[in-house]
Amino acid sequence: MNILAKNKETHQNSIARFQAKRKKRPSTEMLIQGIKDGNRTALSRAITMVESNLRSHKSEAQEIINHCLPLGKKSVRIGITGVPGVGKSSFIESFGIMLTKMGHKIAVLAIDPSSSINKGSILGDKTRMEDLVKDPNAYIRPSASGETLGGVAKKTRESVILCEAAGYNIILIETVGVGQSETAVHSMVDFFLLLKLSGAGDELQGIKRGIMEMADAIAINKADGDNIKSAQKAKIEFQRALHLYPPKENGWSPKVLTCSAIEQKGIESIWKMIDSYIQQAKKSSWFENNRKKQTKNWFLNTIEDRLKDNFYKDPTINEALQIQLRAVEENQTSPFTAAETLLAMQAEIWKKQ
Amino acid sequence: MNILAKNKETHQNSIARFQAKRKKRPSTEMLIQGIKDGNRTALSRAITMVESNLRSHKSEAQEIINHCLPLGKKSVRIGITGVPGVGKSSFIESFGIMLTKMGHKIAVLAIDPSSSINKGSILGDKTRMEDLVKDPNAYIRPSASGETLGGVAKKTRESVILCEAAGYNIILIETVGVGQSETAVHSMVDFFLLLKLSGAGDELQGIKRGIMEMADAIAINKADGDNIKSAQKAKIEFQRALHLYPPKENGWSPKVLTCSAIEQKGIESIWKMIDSYIQQAKKSSWFENNRKKQTKNWFLNTIEDRLKDNFYKDPTINEALQIQLRAVEENQTSPFTAAETLLAMQAEIWKKQ
Repeated sequence: MNILAKNKETHQNSIARFQAKRKKRPSTEMLIQGIKDGNRTALSRAITMVESNLRSHKSEAQEIINHCLPLGKKSVRIGITGVPGVGKSSFIESFGIMLTKMGHKIAVLAIDPSSSINKGSILGDKTRMEDLVKDPNAYIRPSASGETLGGVAKKTRESVILCEAAGYNIILIETVGVGQSETAVHSMVDFFLLLKLSGAGDELQGIKRGIMEMADAIAINKADGDNIKSAQKAKIEFQRALHLYPPKENGWSPKVLTCSAIEQKGIESIWKMIDSYIQQAKKSSWFENNRKKQTKNWFLNTIEDRLKDNFYKDPTINEALQIQLRAVEENQTSPFTAAETLLAMQAEIWKKQ
Repeated sequence: MNILAKNKETHQNSIARFQAKRKKRPSTEMLIQGIKDGNRTALSRAITMVESNLRSHKSEAQEIINHCLPLGKKSVRIGITGVPGVGKSSFIESFGIMLTKMGHKIAVLAIDPSSSINKGSILGDKTRMEDLVKDPNAYIRPSASGETLGGVAKKTRESVILCEAAGYNIILIETVGVGQSETAVHSMVDFFLLLKLSGAGDELQGIKRGIMEMADAIAINKADGDNIKSAQKAKIEFQRALHLYPPKENGWSPKVLTCSAIEQKGIESIWKMIDSYIQQAKKSSWFENNRKKQTKNWFLNTIEDRLKDNFYKDPTINEALQIQLRAVEENQTSPFTAAETLLAMQAEIWKKQ
């Protein structure tokens, strides 16, 4: 065989290999149909697409999302937060199994930019939710990873859309509650539940005030055995503390409950409370309005992220930025004047394009 | 006199009036020189320019700022925060008078977007700082007003530059400590002081954790009369609480002190502590680096505000935005796709300009 023929054969092999690869990878249409059919593999693949940073994956993911958006209509999105050690995984396991027994289909997602270092996130806890993992009506997805909270939040939001289109009607979004991620979760859920523990008199210590304000309910977990009394005491203290906050926009007064995820006590009451909240919010159209407000903010945040991207990723601007930055740092020009210079430069570049 | 002649006379009168007005209003050069000479009227006028929303004032203000930037080199910027009732005004009065007696020139500014409703901000407290107001080496400027924290923060930052150019070497920036303004103040000062009160066992309750983390020192005010014991107790509790936080980047361990602004006790120790912090920070070049970091962030924030302004203020985009927003709210398109559409539109508009 001469070299030319050999090259030709190699080339044909390469095409064959490429075609085989293409075959393995389902088409966008197949993924969309798979999601509509509630196929977990299709859902997982689509979420992987959403989480990918590849440009080709991104546009495919957007196509899938646009098809999925109108499908998931009757979902309830619940945010669950609490510091590590509060028993989030066992709570979600207990809560999730109760819900699937009631006929619901539940999806568990997590938003946690630090999940890569695995601080009690469900990435590490997945194996601990032994029974829920096996439940055919539950879908558990480990945390999306990413460097910025904004990026991770975007991925989680989009994954919610996909899960809802796949028929999961209750979405639990978990956060470890040690950073800014609670605000992100709060901005994408209908109900925000804060898990707490009772302790030796330190019930109010170390609580981030902002989280208390965001919570629609506080559940004091591990209210079992010797802890029952102190959990009851903590309940009263939290109720008192919640009274210090101004009433919620929708008229809801945040509730405080006790529960034991391990003994499966109080879990049903928590669901009843959430359900009654949702019913009430739907009646008053607050539910719909809140979802609209959340979607609007998501939209505006997306625009602003893209505006910044466009600006900072332009190599000419980036070079000029370094020069202006030095001038600003040396007090040779004000940040305002330097910013104006760069914006005028951007206008010039765009004109020429 | 015929009508034409009368019209001519009126026109000439109008020119004269206009020229008289122009004379009254000092030129940009005069304002810059006035500031350099430490003229308080010139300083006040320039700050009014900085605070103005008129386009012509804005560009004049930038010219003044650019001239003032290289002038104020040896200043110390101190942020002072605390909830209403903690005694910020009396503390600033006591602290300020001590500093002017030591030969310093001090400027007091406030950052407080809610100042218009006058919740204990220095706008209302100015009259309470009776002695400081009369002090020729102190300059007190009521809060800049404005709707957004970002806007008010920008004005305060720029006013700091003007005050420094006018020879004020210690700048006190006050915030009421009930919103997001502490973060803004923290981002523009060299030292961040949190004022607290001792109380009946509730020393740790109601503290925003973020503020505790930001503080370089806590001063427990009103440590006088019957309060001395409880202030000492609070001091120990705060010291314990501060130990829970990770060490500061620059190696500084936040201090806790007690003081009585009204009895002028402990005020000097607070200054000594701040001064030793500044000396230490300057030696390690952390001071310089921190200022550079702050300026860089200010610069980037300015860029991002301008990018958003350019986008949202375009009438064509704004109209399209409403349409896309409705589509997003109705789940007809994803926020990402809608944002892409608008950004493509912006690119088209810019090209045509």
